[in-house]
Amino acid sequence: MSDTWLPSLLTSTPEEGFQLAVKLSRMGVKTTQPDVEVLHRLRPDYSQNADSLTAASQVVAINFQTVAAANGYWR
Amino acid sequence: MSDTWLPSLLTSTPEEGFQLAVKLSRMGVKTTQPDVEVLHRLRPDYSQNADSLTAASQVVAINFQTVAAANGYWR
Amino acid sequence: MSDTWLPSLLTSTPEEGFQLAVKLSRMGVKTTQPDVEVLHRLRPDYSQNADSLTAASQVVAINFQTVAAANGYWR
Amino acid sequence: MSDTWLPSLLTSTPEEGFQLAVKLSRMGVKTTQPDVEVLHRLRPDYSQNADSLTAASQVVAINFQTVAAANGYWR
Amino acid sequence: MSDTWLPSLLTSTPEEGFQLAVKLSRMGVKTTQPDVEVLHRLRPDYSQNADSLTAASQVVAINFQTVAAANGYWR
Amino acid sequence: MSDTWLPSLLTSTPEEGFQLAVKLSRMGVKTTQPDVEVLHRLRPDYSQNADSLTAASQVVAINFQTVAAANGYWR
Repeated sequence: MSDTWLPSLLTSTPEEGFQLAVKLSRMGVKTTQPDVEVLHRLRPDYSQNADSLTAASQVVAINFQTVAAANGYWR
Repeated sequence: MSDTWLPSLLTSTPEEGFQLAVKLSRMGVKTTQPDVEVLHRLRPDYSQNADSLTAASQVVAINFQTVAAANGYWR
Repeated sequence: MSDTWLPSLLTSTPEEGFQLAVKLSRMGVKTTQPDVEVLHRLRPDYSQNADSLTAASQVVAINFQTVAAANGYWR
Repeated sequence: MSDTWLPSLLTSTPEEGFQLAVKLSRMGVKTTQPDVEVLHRLRPDYSQNADSLTAASQVVAINFQTVAAANGYWR
Repeated sequence: MSDTWLPSLLTSTPEEGFQLAVKLSRMGVKTTQPDVEVLHRLRPDYSQNADSLTAASQVVAINFQTVAAANGYWR
Repeated sequence: MSDTWLPSLLTSTPEEGFQLAVKLSRMGVKTTQPDVEVLHRLRPDYSQNADSLTAASQVVAINFQTVAAANGYWR
């Protein structure tokens, strides 16, 4: 199990859950473009484009819904 | 716990829940672009673009779904 | 409580719930652009652009999901 | 009750539920642009643009999620 | 009942559920543009545009959420 | 059953669930553009476009919500 990047959706805290949502979002990108060199080349442009940043935040928000539900919203 | 920006998804009121959704949306942006200088530079443009504002509102709406569910919709 | 714009997600009817979803969508815009003058200036353009109107309707739809769930779908 | 456009989210059949989702999507547009003349003027363009049609279908899909859940998926 | 295109959200298998999600997505397009001639004319362009294809897949994904929930995820 | 690409939404692990979400996203594309030649021709462009990659990740995130729910979040 240790060789998986996603052993569980459970996290100790909401903040760790948010970080997991970020990780899921990035893995969603990597399944389409696995070449890290290319991803690094793209970063300067989109990370300075407001609409690209909003779109990235939206993917994190969708993944955070999943992680939060999995954790019973850490209640 | 005091050094986390997201100690809990629970809030006292719906309005505080909405503010938390706004915060989650901004943190989604900051994970991609942590440089506050850059973010401030981008703001004049996108905050005067209707489509960018609608997109920002959409991310808040998605995060508000999560926060509202976590709080049992404050019923 | 009277000084909050969002005292509750509960509404008497589905139609009032839809109006609340519209309100939530607009508040999502106002958190990014609080200047009402600017918002009024933007309106003529995007309110005559079909894609902008569809995007606005989408945000309302997402917020309506939240409000409808909060109200047990008014069953 | 007869003077409301949304008396209930309940419908007799899935197909009627889908039509209600379409209605909700159009009302989402009308809250931003209530002028029917303008809406008719916009129609020829976006109804012949594939991406606009896909976006419209997406809003219907989101509203259909709400209507279907309200109706217990007509099981 | 035989004259409805959507008699039920229930399907025998997940794959049939996915096909129903595709059908729902297309019906969402047809409610805006019922002219099949126009739809056929648009197809060559958007079916060779990666972003249009991704957008179409997103609508299917949203409708598949609804169909899968309706079927108790075929567990 | 062996001749179906989607026998079940159930997977052994979260990581396999994520891969299934990727598969669902690609099948959503293939229902619109079944010609694999065309899809391969499109790949170099969109896989080097940050916004296209974010959009692809978003579709995966939506499908992952479905798969995760189907699996009880692998708790």
